Amino acid sequence: MQLDKIIDDIEQSYHQYDNISKIDTIPQPDKTIILDILSRLQDIVFPGFFGRKNLKSEVVKYYLGDQIQIIYDELEKQILLAFDYSEKYQNFSKEEKKAEAEKITLEFLKRIPSIREYLSTDADATFDGDPAAFSISEIVITYPGYYAIMVNRIAHELHLLNVPLIPRIMTEHAHSLTGIDIHPGATLGRYLMIDHGTGIVIGETTIIGEHVKIYQGVTLGATSTHGGQSLKNVKRHPTIKDHVTIYSNASVLGGETVIGEGSIIGGNTFITKSIPAGTVVNNKAVMRFKYSEKSEDFKQGNF
Amino acid sequence: MQLDKIIDDIEQSYHQYDNISKIDTIPQPDKTIILDILSRLQDIVFPGFFGRKNLKSEVVKYYLGDQIQIIYDELEKQILLAFDYSEKYQNFSKEEKKAEAEKITLEFLKRIPSIREYLSTDADATFDGDPAAFSISEIVITYPGYYAIMVNRIAHELHLLNVPLIPRIMTEHAHSLTGIDIHPGATLGRYLMIDHGTGIVIGETTIIGEHVKIYQGVTLGATSTHGGQSLKNVKRHPTIKDHVTIYSNASVLGGETVIGEGSIIGGNTFITKSIPAGTVVNNKAVMRFKYSEKSEDFKQGNF
Amino acid sequence: MQLDKIIDDIEQSYHQYDNISKIDTIPQPDKTIILDILSRLQDIVFPGFFGRKNLKSEVVKYYLGDQIQIIYDELEKQILLAFDYSEKYQNFSKEEKKAEAEKITLEFLKRIPSIREYLSTDADATFDGDPAAFSISEIVITYPGYYAIMVNRIAHELHLLNVPLIPRIMTEHAHSLTGIDIHPGATLGRYLMIDHGTGIVIGETTIIGEHVKIYQGVTLGATSTHGGQSLKNVKRHPTIKDHVTIYSNASVLGGETVIGEGSIIGGNTFITKSIPAGTVVNNKAVMRFKYSEKSEDFKQGNF
Amino acid sequence: MQLDKIIDDIEQSYHQYDNISKIDTIPQPDKTIILDILSRLQDIVFPGFFGRKNLKSEVVKYYLGDQIQIIYDELEKQILLAFDYSEKYQNFSKEEKKAEAEKITLEFLKRIPSIREYLSTDADATFDGDPAAFSISEIVITYPGYYAIMVNRIAHELHLLNVPLIPRIMTEHAHSLTGIDIHPGATLGRYLMIDHGTGIVIGETTIIGEHVKIYQGVTLGATSTHGGQSLKNVKRHPTIKDHVTIYSNASVLGGETVIGEGSIIGGNTFITKSIPAGTVVNNKAVMRFKYSEKSEDFKQGNF
Amino acid sequence: MQLDKIIDDIEQSYHQYDNISKIDTIPQPDKTIILDILSRLQDIVFPGFFGRKNLKSEVVKYYLGDQIQIIYDELEKQILLAFDYSEKYQNFSKEEKKAEAEKITLEFLKRIPSIREYLSTDADATFDGDPAAFSISEIVITYPGYYAIMVNRIAHELHLLNVPLIPRIMTEHAHSLTGIDIHPGATLGRYLMIDHGTGIVIGETTIIGEHVKIYQGVTLGATSTHGGQSLKNVKRHPTIKDHVTIYSNASVLGGETVIGEGSIIGGNTFITKSIPAGTVVNNKAVMRFKYSEKSEDFKQGNF
Amino acid sequence: MQLDKIIDDIEQSYHQYDNISKIDTIPQPDKTIILDILSRLQDIVFPGFFGRKNLKSEVVKYYLGDQIQIIYDELEKQILLAFDYSEKYQNFSKEEKKAEAEKITLEFLKRIPSIREYLSTDADATFDGDPAAFSISEIVITYPGYYAIMVNRIAHELHLLNVPLIPRIMTEHAHSLTGIDIHPGATLGRYLMIDHGTGIVIGETTIIGEHVKIYQGVTLGATSTHGGQSLKNVKRHPTIKDHVTIYSNASVLGGETVIGEGSIIGGNTFITKSIPAGTVVNNKAVMRFKYSEKSEDFKQGNF
Repeated sequence: MQLDKIIDDIEQSYHQYDNISKIDTIPQPDKTIILDILSRLQDIVFPGFFGRKNLKSEVVKYYLGDQIQIIYDELEKQILLAFDYSEKYQNFSKEEKKAEAEKITLEFLKRIPSIREYLSTDADATFDGDPAAFSISEIVITYPGYYAIMVNRIAHELHLLNVPLIPRIMTEHAHSLTGIDIHPGATLGRYLMIDHGTGIVIGETTIIGEHVKIYQGVTLGATSTHGGQSLKNVKRHPTIKDHVTIYSNASVLGGETVIGEGSIIGGNTFITKSIPAGTVVNNKAVMRFKYSEKSEDFKQGNF
Repeated sequence: MQLDKIIDDIEQSYHQYDNISKIDTIPQPDKTIILDILSRLQDIVFPGFFGRKNLKSEVVKYYLGDQIQIIYDELEKQILLAFDYSEKYQNFSKEEKKAEAEKITLEFLKRIPSIREYLSTDADATFDGDPAAFSISEIVITYPGYYAIMVNRIAHELHLLNVPLIPRIMTEHAHSLTGIDIHPGATLGRYLMIDHGTGIVIGETTIIGEHVKIYQGVTLGATSTHGGQSLKNVKRHPTIKDHVTIYSNASVLGGETVIGEGSIIGGNTFITKSIPAGTVVNNKAVMRFKYSEKSEDFKQGNF
Repeated sequence: MQLDKIIDDIEQSYHQYDNISKIDTIPQPDKTIILDILSRLQDIVFPGFFGRKNLKSEVVKYYLGDQIQIIYDELEKQILLAFDYSEKYQNFSKEEKKAEAEKITLEFLKRIPSIREYLSTDADATFDGDPAAFSISEIVITYPGYYAIMVNRIAHELHLLNVPLIPRIMTEHAHSLTGIDIHPGATLGRYLMIDHGTGIVIGETTIIGEHVKIYQGVTLGATSTHGGQSLKNVKRHPTIKDHVTIYSNASVLGGETVIGEGSIIGGNTFITKSIPAGTVVNNKAVMRFKYSEKSEDFKQGNF
Repeated sequence: MQLDKIIDDIEQSYHQYDNISKIDTIPQPDKTIILDILSRLQDIVFPGFFGRKNLKSEVVKYYLGDQIQIIYDELEKQILLAFDYSEKYQNFSKEEKKAEAEKITLEFLKRIPSIREYLSTDADATFDGDPAAFSISEIVITYPGYYAIMVNRIAHELHLLNVPLIPRIMTEHAHSLTGIDIHPGATLGRYLMIDHGTGIVIGETTIIGEHVKIYQGVTLGATSTHGGQSLKNVKRHPTIKDHVTIYSNASVLGGETVIGEGSIIGGNTFITKSIPAGTVVNNKAVMRFKYSEKSEDFKQGNF
Repeated sequence: MQLDKIIDDIEQSYHQYDNISKIDTIPQPDKTIILDILSRLQDIVFPGFFGRKNLKSEVVKYYLGDQIQIIYDELEKQILLAFDYSEKYQNFSKEEKKAEAEKITLEFLKRIPSIREYLSTDADATFDGDPAAFSISEIVITYPGYYAIMVNRIAHELHLLNVPLIPRIMTEHAHSLTGIDIHPGATLGRYLMIDHGTGIVIGETTIIGEHVKIYQGVTLGATSTHGGQSLKNVKRHPTIKDHVTIYSNASVLGGETVIGEGSIIGGNTFITKSIPAGTVVNNKAVMRFKYSEKSEDFKQGNF
Repeated sequence: MQLDKIIDDIEQSYHQYDNISKIDTIPQPDKTIILDILSRLQDIVFPGFFGRKNLKSEVVKYYLGDQIQIIYDELEKQILLAFDYSEKYQNFSKEEKKAEAEKITLEFLKRIPSIREYLSTDADATFDGDPAAFSISEIVITYPGYYAIMVNRIAHELHLLNVPLIPRIMTEHAHSLTGIDIHPGATLGRYLMIDHGTGIVIGETTIIGEHVKIYQGVTLGATSTHGGQSLKNVKRHPTIKDHVTIYSNASVLGGETVIGEGSIIGGNTFITKSIPAGTVVNNKAVMRFKYSEKSEDFKQGNF
């Protein structure tokens, strides 16, 4: 029968090209479960918006507590599975791995109030910055940029705790839903606003300050990735200081590139060198202004 | 126990950062139900393509009628919940809100034939404009640009009827699926074609004429959003006249910017001023032609 | 009753704008089933990563064989339905269509080992090229660019076998999930790497060599599509030779445009003419280098 | 490998004991679809109780019409498949089978008002007869006896229309849910009440009059089934005349056994001969009364 | 079209036989939600056996508390809907109904510890009484008799609190799953054991003492139900005293029938009169014994 | 808050009545998974009837092999969990338990051809014995008695292999669906027919010969279960020899009771003593016949 031959040939190819086969190997973290954990985290980070509706303050602790318990159990298991995807844990005993997974999970859960604090500032910044926004509820429920920030803030904490693979599964999920690709390693300051967002790329070693606004199609990337794996752990992506605005489709590249405080990067610009504080860059010109004064105007919308 | 402490701290953060908590408050529209309504609308706007297959003309009225009945019931309920997200309805009595929700729902349903009329022209335009298209069926079933237009045409009618939040939930869903972000406020003319589409942003106060083609990565945006909420209700986004083509990654910005009839905006251009009718703009040059004559050539593919 | 009138009006519009109605017509391929087939193909192309976990080599043949059997049955049925969407099969008898669908399905399944061979090289290329990648598993599980390549490699084989509609449903699904729009007609060489990816468009008649890297927002497109359906089957999209890197948001347009071996196309460039081998193009300058020597440096990351 | 041997042995047993294998054969009716049809029939036979809630009279026709359309399509397909399970249709051509299936389906749907008429009387009888019943709604929603009667009334019409297999799948489903086993061939009169019901068996050739009450554990069966298939089409089960009550765990057996009008069969009795009208039978004695008079007392509850 | 005629006829029958139509009427309790509540009650009555597994004592309160909160919300809503199915609440204002539903729900939840106390004794009795039982876990997980007792204990409390319809929906669900039909009105003492169970009927006004054992097919029923609705609220079913055993298929009938303490009712007996304490009844004879002494033998299995 | 108090009280009851709590304990087998295994076993025992339809002989081995692989994995895990519910395995080390679970699972799978052999005879016997049966397919698909026999044959093999709890979960599932309660310990001979079935109880130590027919409501039970756990492992249920027929609602009780070959036990009889071969027992009389001759008549239906 023809199908028999086809099946045999495919099976043989499993051994021939075995970098993309996973047969007779250790189990890997389960994407479906990790996305379920992410969804539960969203539910408790924004209580009453998603998942359980109509929460009452007297009993919210039971709902919260039960979700935390589920997240705790599931996340610890996935972290344990993920350890095999990092060299760091190769020499840990089974018991040490278990203890480490438990420790990491608890530490992560402790950081949720802090994640909420940051997200509270992001919501305010997004509302203040977008004339089309009617309410903060609208932002929490519908804005893709805000969703991508939330996922990064969660994934970044796991990244800082040296959890392999799982943070990336989370941010790639956000990438798929929003078209915004923020690496879990990227450091995002308070009061971040991302508008529209599709096509944004924010690389692993990017550092972003407070009160920054980023529009669709912006790349905060590396100048070149020739070198590949040998560049691992090198700072390859830019630093963005406080109160910077980066308009759509601008590219800011390079690990040594610093965009100074209060600067405004115009749309479709291509920047590979540092920009001092208080600079306006557009396609045709570069203007300077005294940042400390100007910043008042920002708030009044006079710019 | 450590988890008890963690749970208490998170619960406390619910009160501390309460702009992103929704506890002891009024209920909000349900995203899942709204997306179900959108899906049912797609089913009846394109009968036989999605949802129920193999429709027969003798009995299509029962299927259609039953779907309309379900949409009517569900949409009215969601609109009623959405009223609390707009100042406009703050002083309405409960009965007035109910009557208004019913009135809006009926008015919206009346506009479905008109929505279909527009979408019929969009399908023709897309087929005529894309050499890679084999049939209109292929377009209806697979083209993300066509899907995004459909969602805007539905959401725009709800927007015109002053329904809060719901239109945005619909267009952000389309945004997530297609990478095309069209604000429900944007006004789109007949025979619109959007090709590839990822990365397109069309702002709230944009006005687009007939026979317009738009490619991936195009921004029809505001020059600056410094000013934030104070710019609400100001025309901030451009006007695109009939028979204009805007190639990939072009940016057309500003509420006073008008792209004249028949003009062609080349890829990767950045335009913040009005362009007269019959102009070709690319990265290096601006050419004029007499629009009325030229338009014939368009059809023959001689351009 | 008002709803009766509304329902009648919508039903009437079904006959009036009937290019977007599908009533009393032949059945069409089912998108849900096609995406299920695609998902099963992913499962067996990457055994153990998705679908069934913890595969053991002794029994993997049963799992594989059963999936192949299901795919065979379902795909043949869908191909048969799809024939009605192409002129090629209009004059085939029912039996001839059936025989052709069976032949195509078997031929497609025979190509799976070859698809795996190509994907094996893509995984290696992506790992070598991305400093942020920890393992090939991470790439297979999370990288949207790698997913989009896989879907194209599958859809392209069906396209070569003259299957209508189905390949496009597959690639538009990948487009929706990743923001990467690769037409099934595009020809992709071995060792392809797509990083970040959102906003990439690769047109129907594009030809890409081996060891090519492509970043987010890149368009490999047509210079103009005025002419529409009359351009069908014309080569409208560029040719990319081996060892080319195309950085983010670059546009390479035109069917006669050839990017020579080893060239590097900088970010945000706009290219409508051929580039000789060994050329570096960026926003401000064009540099030449001797490709054969330089290529060594590539591997050592000295560029 | 041991599993290989096991799998081979089981596969071999597929050929060895092939009366319970179904390999390389014609398809059979699909139990899941048939039970879905039954569920839709229940929805429209009792509008507003199950399935769609809160029906309004102005629009009920759309819901009803759409359900009928679905039932029509699905039932016709299943009937066509079922024809292969009966000798009656062996010599029909494909077209004749199709025409016959369509004719039967339409004829069955025409009988739904009549089925409703009968079920309306059964609901009244059950309410009048059960002191524990609070309302007819409670009966429709919760009484297993009433459910079993409904399923028989539907299945019996299909049985009369010579549909093989499908009626039995329906009644065995009711049997599983209620413990009441009524063969589709059994003929049930108006105003039937079945209380509690578990353990009731009503055989294929049973005939039951009007205003009959039957309690749990009652068998209306055959005296002996030695003879097996040779007894097919022989009347093997009893006839129960109007106004008869049969108390729990009574057995009435035999095709010639007739229980006369108004008789009362006491609990745990075992009856294999006919009983004249107006007889009370219990474990210890047989009493006679004049049925025509007595029947008045029945209505007044003086018995 | 024939279907149009059929649809019209069925719609007309909705008005003609309107005792089994529910169109333009008030909503009714939702069976699916009530069974979900029942399932959640089972989860928290037997913590760790069903629903959430692997409960830890430190955090069980969150799971429990959250389930109670869900049950509280859902049950209150269903009780409110059920009020319209009882005359008792016809004259209540909307606010009074709401207050009453809340009061009843809280009162019911308060009784859960007491329900658990009773079920704890039933589990012990079942284990002690069944040689085939390996552990109490096996009983909780698999014994239908134990499940039916649980559902009655829950439904009975709701019945005592004058909740219409809902208790019956619960017990009929148990009836469907187990073949054991215990009316919510029946009063069951501690240490009840029901073995096998199929075919058991226990009527509305039955009273059962402690340490009672009941086998399959037993009816505790009314002697006659001629009289129907006029017998409502009359004691029609028997009283069973402590330490009674009733073997399979026995019938005990009549509201004045009392089975005295320690008596043993043999299989297939039919009893319509009271039996004094310490009596053994079988098909052929009635024996007396001094109950107080005999009971010791029971425990030693010497009977 | 009142709910807080209620929740505390329930939590306290978890410790008070802890025989029905399962907190801080070892995990137990998962009923849902066990029933999934049972469903897969049904699929492969009756290939083509359930689960995958339209099997072709060339490829059936892949489907079968994959199902066996899944069953093997899942069943082994559940058996391992079940070991903790039996004293037999208390002293096994973790590795010994694992090895034992694997051994048992393989041994069980080896017996599937034998299970099929027995079920093949049961199907023939049921068809021959029931005038109402149209085909063996109808029996396999719809007959509850046949389903209950299948479940027993599977569960009985697990029981013989000393698997705790799991066989009972399987047979109680069949009990719930069919009202037929066959203990996994019961031994059933070839060519068994169970008709209608509801209310049948077949006890743990019952032994049934070949060519036996059993009707609804039959109990093959113990005379008394006073003595409870002390009777464990005693033969308490009867022995039924070859070619015996037991009509509806008959009770045959006692571990020493033997029903001799070819005997016929009439409906509603109550038997606690052995019956010699070739005996007809009914409610009123006992007749003898010479079994060896008579048996010929059986086949010809002359009895």
